[in-house]
Amino acid sequence: MTKVYDKAHELARELNESEEFTNLEQLHQQINEDEVAKRMLDNFRQVQMDLQQKQMQGEQISEEEIQSAQQQFELVQQHEAISQLMESEQRVSQMITDLNKIITEPLEKLYGTPEEGAQG
Amino acid sequence: MTKVYDKAHELARELNESEEFTNLEQLHQQINEDEVAKRMLDNFRQVQMDLQQKQMQGEQISEEEIQSAQQQFELVQQHEAISQLMESEQRVSQMITDLNKIITEPLEKLYGTPEEGAQG
Ligand SMILES: [Ca+2]
Ligand SMILES: [Ca+2]
Repeated sequence: MTKVYDKAHELARELNESEEFTNLEQLHQQINEDEVAKRMLDNFRQVQMDLQQKQMQGEQISEEEIQSAQQQFELVQQHEAISQLMESEQRVSQMITDLNKIITEPLEKLYGTPEEGAQG
Repeated sequence: MTKVYDKAHELARELNESEEFTNLEQLHQQINEDEVAKRMLDNFRQVQMDLQQKQMQGEQISEEEIQSAQQQFELVQQHEAISQLMESEQRVSQMITDLNKIITEPLEKLYGTPEEGAQG
């Protein structure tokens, strides 16, 4: 078990030092130092979260709200650093997904993956 | 990036070789070879999944259904191998949760954890 946790820490270190993550850190810092960009992004994220919460609670989301969110998305996308940050987040998020897939492979072998057919 | 994936594969190997996971594999095999236990467990899991699905779809779950599920849980708990398997699954599941926490630590440092207060 200790070995497992040691490896997990090594993996976290490699992730921290990876090009993808370093890029994300830099963009994050860049935006944090730019008051206008930061406010723009925070605002956008709040709108996204509010909509998500409504959706999860089964509340109706109006046409107006969808349009407003879309407009805000297009607006933040036009901001160079923010759009780069979002791309970077996508890449890191994909990486984390891939890592999870690799790590839980032993479990999937045991229980079988529904998509590929259980192999017992 | 290659290093990150290499480490993830190393971690998966350690997980596969860990005492906790080996124990889970053995219990899983033991139950798969015991027709009665397997049917009992499959049946219990189906009931659990049906209830979960109902819950996710916001459907009403009757007192009767809850009681029936509880009774089935108590029944499978009395089966030595099944109750051991469930405990083993709990331990492995906790391990995976811990691993995920360790691996995503760099991300949490970047975005801050709401519970512990953002540190930037
Ligand atoms: Ca770093
Ligand atoms: Ca193994």
